[in-house]
Amino acid sequence: MFMHNKRLMYTVHVEQPDPILASLLLEQFGGPQGELAAAMRYFTQALGEEDAGRKDLLLDVATEELSHLEIIGSIIAMLNKGTKGELSEGMIEAIEMRGMTQNSTSHTQSILYGGGPALVNSSGVPWTAAYVDSIGDPTADLRSNIAAESRAKLVYERLINVTDDPGIKDALRFLMTREIAHQQSFEKALYAISPNFPPGKLPGDPEYTDLYMDMSQGDGDVEGPWNSGEAWTVISSREEQYALDGGDGEATVDGLTASQEEALDAMATRTASDPLADPLTGAELGTAPTVEDGPPRPLLG
Amino acid sequence: MFMHNKRLMYTVHVEQPDPILASLLLEQFGGPQGELAAAMRYFTQALGEEDAGRKDLLLDVATEELSHLEIIGSIIAMLNKGTKGELSEGMIEAIEMRGMTQNSTSHTQSILYGGGPALVNSSGVPWTAAYVDSIGDPTADLRSNIAAESRAKLVYERLINVTDDPGIKDALRFLMTREIAHQQSFEKALYAISPNFPPGKLPGDPEYTDLYMDMSQGDGDVEGPWNSGEAWTVISSREEQYALDGGDGEATVDGLTASQEEALDAMATRTASDPLADPLTGAELGTAPTVEDGPPRPLLG
Amino acid sequence: MFMHNKRLMYTVHVEQPDPILASLLLEQFGGPQGELAAAMRYFTQALGEEDAGRKDLLLDVATEELSHLEIIGSIIAMLNKGTKGELSEGMIEAIEMRGMTQNSTSHTQSILYGGGPALVNSSGVPWTAAYVDSIGDPTADLRSNIAAESRAKLVYERLINVTDDPGIKDALRFLMTREIAHQQSFEKALYAISPNFPPGKLPGDPEYTDLYMDMSQGDGDVEGPWNSGEAWTVISSREEQYALDGGDGEATVDGLTASQEEALDAMATRTASDPLADPLTGAELGTAPTVEDGPPRPLLG
Amino acid sequence: MFMHNKRLMYTVHVEQPDPILASLLLEQFGGPQGELAAAMRYFTQALGEEDAGRKDLLLDVATEELSHLEIIGSIIAMLNKGTKGELSEGMIEAIEMRGMTQNSTSHTQSILYGGGPALVNSSGVPWTAAYVDSIGDPTADLRSNIAAESRAKLVYERLINVTDDPGIKDALRFLMTREIAHQQSFEKALYAISPNFPPGKLPGDPEYTDLYMDMSQGDGDVEGPWNSGEAWTVISSREEQYALDGGDGEATVDGLTASQEEALDAMATRTASDPLADPLTGAELGTAPTVEDGPPRPLLG
Amino acid sequence: MFMHNKRLMYTVHVEQPDPILASLLLEQFGGPQGELAAAMRYFTQALGEEDAGRKDLLLDVATEELSHLEIIGSIIAMLNKGTKGELSEGMIEAIEMRGMTQNSTSHTQSILYGGGPALVNSSGVPWTAAYVDSIGDPTADLRSNIAAESRAKLVYERLINVTDDPGIKDALRFLMTREIAHQQSFEKALYAISPNFPPGKLPGDPEYTDLYMDMSQGDGDVEGPWNSGEAWTVISSREEQYALDGGDGEATVDGLTASQEEALDAMATRTASDPLADPLTGAELGTAPTVEDGPPRPLLG
Amino acid sequence: MFMHNKRLMYTVHVEQPDPILASLLLEQFGGPQGELAAAMRYFTQALGEEDAGRKDLLLDVATEELSHLEIIGSIIAMLNKGTKGELSEGMIEAIEMRGMTQNSTSHTQSILYGGGPALVNSSGVPWTAAYVDSIGDPTADLRSNIAAESRAKLVYERLINVTDDPGIKDALRFLMTREIAHQQSFEKALYAISPNFPPGKLPGDPEYTDLYMDMSQGDGDVEGPWNSGEAWTVISSREEQYALDGGDGEATVDGLTASQEEALDAMATRTASDPLADPLTGAELGTAPTVEDGPPRPLLG
Repeated sequence: MFMHNKRLMYTVHVEQPDPILASLLLEQFGGPQGELAAAMRYFTQALGEEDAGRKDLLLDVATEELSHLEIIGSIIAMLNKGTKGELSEGMIEAIEMRGMTQNSTSHTQSILYGGGPALVNSSGVPWTAAYVDSIGDPTADLRSNIAAESRAKLVYERLINVTDDPGIKDALRFLMTREIAHQQSFEKALYAISPNFPPGKLPGDPEYTDLYMDMSQGDGDVEGPWNSGEAWTVISSREEQYALDGGDGEATVDGLTASQEEALDAMATRTASDPLADPLTGAELGTAPTVEDGPPRPLLG
Repeated sequence: MFMHNKRLMYTVHVEQPDPILASLLLEQFGGPQGELAAAMRYFTQALGEEDAGRKDLLLDVATEELSHLEIIGSIIAMLNKGTKGELSEGMIEAIEMRGMTQNSTSHTQSILYGGGPALVNSSGVPWTAAYVDSIGDPTADLRSNIAAESRAKLVYERLINVTDDPGIKDALRFLMTREIAHQQSFEKALYAISPNFPPGKLPGDPEYTDLYMDMSQGDGDVEGPWNSGEAWTVISSREEQYALDGGDGEATVDGLTASQEEALDAMATRTASDPLADPLTGAELGTAPTVEDGPPRPLLG
Repeated sequence: MFMHNKRLMYTVHVEQPDPILASLLLEQFGGPQGELAAAMRYFTQALGEEDAGRKDLLLDVATEELSHLEIIGSIIAMLNKGTKGELSEGMIEAIEMRGMTQNSTSHTQSILYGGGPALVNSSGVPWTAAYVDSIGDPTADLRSNIAAESRAKLVYERLINVTDDPGIKDALRFLMTREIAHQQSFEKALYAISPNFPPGKLPGDPEYTDLYMDMSQGDGDVEGPWNSGEAWTVISSREEQYALDGGDGEATVDGLTASQEEALDAMATRTASDPLADPLTGAELGTAPTVEDGPPRPLLG
Repeated sequence: MFMHNKRLMYTVHVEQPDPILASLLLEQFGGPQGELAAAMRYFTQALGEEDAGRKDLLLDVATEELSHLEIIGSIIAMLNKGTKGELSEGMIEAIEMRGMTQNSTSHTQSILYGGGPALVNSSGVPWTAAYVDSIGDPTADLRSNIAAESRAKLVYERLINVTDDPGIKDALRFLMTREIAHQQSFEKALYAISPNFPPGKLPGDPEYTDLYMDMSQGDGDVEGPWNSGEAWTVISSREEQYALDGGDGEATVDGLTASQEEALDAMATRTASDPLADPLTGAELGTAPTVEDGPPRPLLG
Repeated sequence: MFMHNKRLMYTVHVEQPDPILASLLLEQFGGPQGELAAAMRYFTQALGEEDAGRKDLLLDVATEELSHLEIIGSIIAMLNKGTKGELSEGMIEAIEMRGMTQNSTSHTQSILYGGGPALVNSSGVPWTAAYVDSIGDPTADLRSNIAAESRAKLVYERLINVTDDPGIKDALRFLMTREIAHQQSFEKALYAISPNFPPGKLPGDPEYTDLYMDMSQGDGDVEGPWNSGEAWTVISSREEQYALDGGDGEATVDGLTASQEEALDAMATRTASDPLADPLTGAELGTAPTVEDGPPRPLLG
Repeated sequence: MFMHNKRLMYTVHVEQPDPILASLLLEQFGGPQGELAAAMRYFTQALGEEDAGRKDLLLDVATEELSHLEIIGSIIAMLNKGTKGELSEGMIEAIEMRGMTQNSTSHTQSILYGGGPALVNSSGVPWTAAYVDSIGDPTADLRSNIAAESRAKLVYERLINVTDDPGIKDALRFLMTREIAHQQSFEKALYAISPNFPPGKLPGDPEYTDLYMDMSQGDGDVEGPWNSGEAWTVISSREEQYALDGGDGEATVDGLTASQEEALDAMATRTASDPLADPLTGAELGTAPTVEDGPPRPLLG
């Protein structure tokens, strides 16, 4: 069960209203790397988790991320507070709003959301659960969590770089730091599963595990530990890259019923593009240089 | 520049048509963990990448994933081939299609896409670039790639578990194995960056890096390396969890103009919900058994 | 700040696994009328709310809805628990899964989410913040909340009607009842604003406030308090429905620059569809009954 | 059946082109509270409606909203008319377009839609049927319609506040007023159902109907008619908030088959995160200053 | 201005309720090739259209498509009418609904939409304006309309093939036929623009207009009028396919400021993946069978 | 199988960084008419294509479009290169970024994607497979391809009109020209199918094929070859437009079970909006100036 206290986990002090900065911060409110995505990622994992330790960890962090969502949303609310009042009351300043807040996300925030923080990213795109990449396996999900925390850390770092409001910088630095801490916890939980690689239960096919497929060639090919050394077999020859299984590289299906074969034949005949035709096309009709050449003759009468 | 050869990277042999299995396999064609998501993830990273080695790696894997997209799409095309013909030609069997392919994704595939593989997941949801979580920093993006490969490996494993067509199992096992190989390459590339943790450039605030916030409490609390040991300071007291910075845990903004203050006051007055009111509500009107009884009486108090 | 306790707000007891029922219940987990939508609706309103009483109310209900999200998610996790294990471990039963769980959302849950509850609706469509209709004005938002609670009540009622598991019915009835209670609270808060109609600050134009436009005519026209009585002026004549302002019903713009006028003229000339032409079309080319009539003559040479 | 006449329901006169204002007005063309959403909301309700009076009302208003969509779209077309010509003809002024219309939605309108009104909101997000919240029950849908009209009224009010073009203000005021009229009609239709509360057929559980859950606590708690008075029982004690049913607050499932139990055990064992481990993690590897120092040491403890 | 009459453009008679067939028909109600997409495509084009003849044509067809939307929606409402009542009233039959309507779209229709037609496709995916591909140029938009009509014709054809209800077949055949008629009108309007190819104003670069790039090679290469004959120059040599402009095929940028160069250097150094490293990776840590074996050894080399 | 070479198909030279221009160019990277949409359109069609010639053509063009995606993405990467470095390294210039790049898409590119090209359009909306309109029938899909190429040609033309960087103009002109060439190929392939109109197999109903429905009337009606001449029968009378089949224009369903009839009756009774009521409404409650006046009086009559 969730509970709430009206004090924030971190105090928010904003120097002055700034709706454009508010738009940027939306990235961590309703954006793909933002706090709702984090909270929902861990919360939904927790519900399906069978391991008591991981379930506890996931619930701890999910709850903290909700509290971070509240912090970032509170900053946005403060930054928008001035224009919210002016627009709401139809003050003479409202008409200037268009000039003050040129980007379209600020506009949308004011016109559509009335200055309240909305679950959209900094371009105004609504949050979608398509951002949540949990799949219900701990060796995969913990890696996803580790990656998500590192992405969120970076987005906070970039936001810190584009403001000089000390109170906002301070709160963002706190939020950024917590992502580092969370990443450490998820790393511990991953490596406490042994083995954790390869993820899942089925082993790979040894024939293809240590193969490096050199699919992009030309100037710029570089060797590194990811594609060289004794661990790797590299296949560069295009001829060897086709049909690695030694087959013909075709796609086939058996077991079509007679009726299906018949239907496929009928369809093929009916829709064949005749390779020997030299058809007049609509584009050629449309290229006709002048109508003075005489009206194009109707072919159908 | 991309080139193409009509031989597949792996030969596809399907025993017999099966539109429902085709629907399941769509998960790796147009689903969030599927091959288009993988190819686009690496391809867009490559375009923005400044490091020659990683750029080469990303292009190698992106190109391979496109070739995998072709393999999985070819399997789906084979599985749908029979119904495609029958529906297209209006054969008597078409009308049975509803019974044969009960789930709605199979339906959509047949009615809307005519049996061709479509960039939707196994529920019929169109692929979206919201699945691609690249952010343009290698220590984050490589972690995202590692996680993505581990998720894709798992989805292939699950698909292998729900079919017994040997040709499909074989191809899926190849595709699954390649995810393992890719994960290894991305791991090597990540750890060839030193240091790679914390991701990005800004250090965390030491005060909050090793803090574990025990936000979820009660039966089920578990200690593990992710929240115990000398590395971690654990805060469990609710009182200490508020306002970690030592402030009042409030959100405030300075620098409102006089006009903004005035507007906010006007708005507050105009829209106040009077806490002392005991208003009759619409719900109470709606609860009233008859309007002939006289004016509706507040039912709730 | 949010906190969490591992005990649920309501005890969940499920008789036996049932992945198809789990799919249906997703409607209230990640669907448009579900608990995440409710929680986020009230939480984001609370952040932008200036009125202390409403802010408190919104936070109380938002937090309760998060706790309901946990309840419904826990039921789903229980219903999926059996197949989760079998699929994860590759048990022989997994291959039967396709037959047991025919609808595509169950499939997606198993293959993609590994049995964990996902933030999708019962068709598998990911949750989107487009479901949240808050606009930052209390007389509108409270009406939206009242409507949302009544919708959620109905969806729970329908779910109760399609299961006979007593533990699930019991929990769903609790959740349904709470929507009734929340609706009552929001009604009280709305009617504690006086006046609250029309919403917002600007008055309507008296000329058009009491007008009823009879736009749909023919058999089936019905009079009721919504379009008859002395309060309403009804306009049924089509001639009077056009251009209610008394103008010509045209759309015009002044102030085009000379360059813009010139450009528009050039564009009009270049792209005119000649109404006097009798052009041969691509469709007519394509209708040609037989190729034996001779090849169509290339008009371009 | 729908019919159309080329005269608008309200005359549109625009003083001069203004692509940025056009972007803002898109909010009511292709935005969530806009006229397409309104028209589709009422039209789809009408198709499923069994009550003749409501069906007539819904069709009247749906048809009027389509006519409003035409009005707002016509204003947008006028505002974009100048740049449409210049861009289309490649006039020298086109290259200045970037400077003139700084926000990205104006850009998208010009580059992608060629100046025509598009079904996107003022941030450029495509309209989605996820905005339509009809659920096929009149006591819920009429409340949704009431709320939708009040939201649309507010968005028009805000748009009026940010333009001083008298012709546009006049048309927007007409459109805003009609939302007030529609709200009145839907209110009449709702209250003509008796009783209409609680919505739907199933009664709530009396034990939980009048309960107010005080989930958010601390400074800022306020009493009002929504949570105090004799109608309400308030539960503030955290201990009493858990497991309101008197149970243990756990989630359980019976009826797992032996095979499922076995699979779950196997999965638990295979994927356990050992709480007693002190594993070296990838993050620790990545923190190591140099690889020459010998094998990486756990940094976190 | 739009008007409405309650008689349909085509009489709808349904033999018996069938919620699964209703799901399929949703494809033409709220699907990508459906009637709303058609109506909105033509309506939005009409608003931006400067040519009187095309504007009239677009409004005629848009209005007819709205009337078709009403027909298909009415069929769906009839097909769902039985279950709507039973579910709404909580009849004993409701609980059987799960068995009767196995696919998830039928479920969603009943549970979420209460049996009313919803603007989703046959997989339950909400309609999106991303389906509308108008770009505000008549030579492109008319081609898009021609294509859209041909797609819609095909989807109706497939739906006719999967039902044997004579009334529904009859109505679908009417709707299918109208798409043919509309295609003919749009063809006439396109070819009444002379020239209409290439679309737009700028000519192509003659050097690349008649070039056919043979990018996919191997078994399966076929010659046809699309890539052979004197009109085409074919480039098959991979060496000649690169850098068609005769340059080096590189991407470069000038004009970076000194500060930008400096930043890029710093970033490159900080984030370099050392190609000579042989780092121990997280995956290797995770492969280690036990932690008691001492420090993990690199498994991959 | 796909292969890659690091040389581009066309050399990219950019004069100087320009993040706003980068945002505009995103339209052809991740927008609806962009190169990914084109590549995926042809690639998915190829997988389902049975005709060898068309399959080859589709693969040739799909592969070329992927190479174009690489060109446009490389231009974007060059335009963003400067700010990428400055933001990444936290240079003092970063804080100016907000002023330099006012539109929200540029912001999102920098903050979220770190300057890398992302699969979003110029408004920041993520690419969706809803843009791909393939339906698996060649006479429809080839028309869709023709239309898509003409749209893409136009978008390139508009982008050429808003930049004066000669290297970018040159590359865009190449890309634009290739769309013309592709359109020609698809035209040839369409007209090599004989007949290709009407698309699909089922003929239209002759009674409705040549009918032109004059649904939009009033000033602005125009005759042209699309609605006049001997080919067309025009129906303008509203009375004749209803129920073209000669029926009553009603929607009816037979075969409801007794239980369903009973449920529908119960529902109708329970939810009837009484047309004779004159109910007091919530809006009227809300209009009352003070609650002290006694019970609220109906204001609307």
